[in-house]
Amino acid sequence: MELPASVAITEVGPRDGLQSAGDAISTASKIQLVDALARTGLRRIEVTSFVHPKLVPSMADAEQVMGGITRMPGVTYTALVPNARGAERAVQAGADELNVVVSTTETFNHRNLNMRVTESAEAYRSIAAIARAAGTRATIGLSVCFGCPYEGVVPLERLLHVLELLVEAGAEEIALADTIGVANPRQVQEIVRAVQQHWPQLELGLHFHDTRGLGMANVLAGLEAGVARFDASVGGIGACPFAPGATGNVCTEDAVHMLELMGVQTDINLDALTACGALVQQLVGHEVPSRMVRAGSVHGLLARLSDRAAQAPLTPW
Amino acid sequence: MELPASVAITEVGPRDGLQSAGDAISTASKIQLVDALARTGLRRIEVTSFVHPKLVPSMADAEQVMGGITRMPGVTYTALVPNARGAERAVQAGADELNVVVSTTETFNHRNLNMRVTESAEAYRSIAAIARAAGTRATIGLSVCFGCPYEGVVPLERLLHVLELLVEAGAEEIALADTIGVANPRQVQEIVRAVQQHWPQLELGLHFHDTRGLGMANVLAGLEAGVARFDASVGGIGACPFAPGATGNVCTEDAVHMLELMGVQTDINLDALTACGALVQQLVGHEVPSRMVRAGSVHGLLARLSDRAAQAPLTPW
Repeated sequence: MELPASVAITEVGPRDGLQSAGDAISTASKIQLVDALARTGLRRIEVTSFVHPKLVPSMADAEQVMGGITRMPGVTYTALVPNARGAERAVQAGADELNVVVSTTETFNHRNLNMRVTESAEAYRSIAAIARAAGTRATIGLSVCFGCPYEGVVPLERLLHVLELLVEAGAEEIALADTIGVANPRQVQEIVRAVQQHWPQLELGLHFHDTRGLGMANVLAGLEAGVARFDASVGGIGACPFAPGATGNVCTEDAVHMLELMGVQTDINLDALTACGALVQQLVGHEVPSRMVRAGSVHGLLARLSDRAAQAPLTPW
Repeated sequence: MELPASVAITEVGPRDGLQSAGDAISTASKIQLVDALARTGLRRIEVTSFVHPKLVPSMADAEQVMGGITRMPGVTYTALVPNARGAERAVQAGADELNVVVSTTETFNHRNLNMRVTESAEAYRSIAAIARAAGTRATIGLSVCFGCPYEGVVPLERLLHVLELLVEAGAEEIALADTIGVANPRQVQEIVRAVQQHWPQLELGLHFHDTRGLGMANVLAGLEAGVARFDASVGGIGACPFAPGATGNVCTEDAVHMLELMGVQTDINLDALTACGALVQQLVGHEVPSRMVRAGSVHGLLARLSDRAAQAPLTPW
């Protein structure tokens, strides 16, 4: 199995994970979580999003969170922004990097950003200029690349057309998002290979939701196609508000565990990360999808072997 | 992505899934579940296990279940057996095929079968003779191939040695089981390729538990290595009683959904199978891991699109 030697994870739990938690999580708790994540070895954390507080009330404290965290050297603290107004707020608040959200389909983009996709590409240009003026850059999170809750199947030609617009607008790093959890491994490889062929220089990331249990298999398919950037959410939190029955993003600690078992380097401390998953569980007040929180790692199991050997004989299989 | 054109699923929920449910599930409910599964297109169902009722009380009604089901033409109704006594009971009760459980490590085999592995290979020989006399055959489910809760890491040489014993004893079909959910995709491919190289004629299956969220990724890795036989459990039920925090087998309907999305043929009706998952949820009385039960299929989502188009505009991403 040919896999990248190392993988970079962008932790999106404080933003994608907590945005659906309403105002249940205090600003202090969000800061506590981001600070704990920054001590795990994660090198990029999407801290919050600078959107209109009336539209996403759970992110109304974006300035306070960004201003309240303790900066760890080597960690890039990013913020999601939908438009130039959000970009200005984010830069003002001290975001290290901006992540611009754009959708693959017109309907999703219209409903969620109230723009045509060409307008979003223009907005990206303005945001990138704001980022450059602040000495940083803007990446793109591209929604519904693998299927749209309004338009259904997204033709590959459509995705490539939107990517063309964004690359022309200056995009250097784009994460393809499976916003509603409909991607499958074969599709992931086909799409990734087509994008790599068209734009070999593009820094390509993948962002999966585990709605139908395919998140980890999709990460594996992406890895096998050579992708070495993945978004993930601590605890596996983050239900997409548009997809009934949806569950969260791929769980960061579960993904890091898989990578570690396969010998792919992440430089992340799995125990510290799993402790963050337990913290998230405590903050949201219900069981989170994380398997590391529930079952623990394989290495943890091996370490407990000597204790288990002392146990009484068990019933058959 | 190179995948087999079609895959055969062995449904193990009524046995591996329900064995840990104690006596909470009535005999009538078990029969109802097996009969519903037989109408989905599944062609092999592990109905029960013929073990000592004192050791596994939940399987004490093995004869009644095997005798109470309605046989569907084209479905093979199998039973798990640990020894010749169990094999005689299973044949007597009308099992179409026997599945013999053997462990890769001496410790696991001793604790669960009270035999040395060489004794298990001999037991297999006797059971295969009983099966042949009844006009059928005996397959093998090989436990803890990817890691043992007592011995830890299982060296590949050990696994190959045990397989050698079993092939010499006449085994034609063996499913490699990750009993405690510790396998990872790279390991799956390495082990599968080594086994295929040694015994290209062996009918090789895989049996995964999803304890650490790697079940579906491991199925994908097995598929990519050319394996076309998988065990799975409806609803995703079936916690291994030996692994604290363990969750169930790979969920049948979630696996079939993944296969269907990737164009791999199963001849199983996903809607009927998902209804069986909902039935299991009702029988066990708590939420089951099945994503199909919770979120539904991608095709189901696409079918609902016209309804969703009528919905009010949504809040951003």
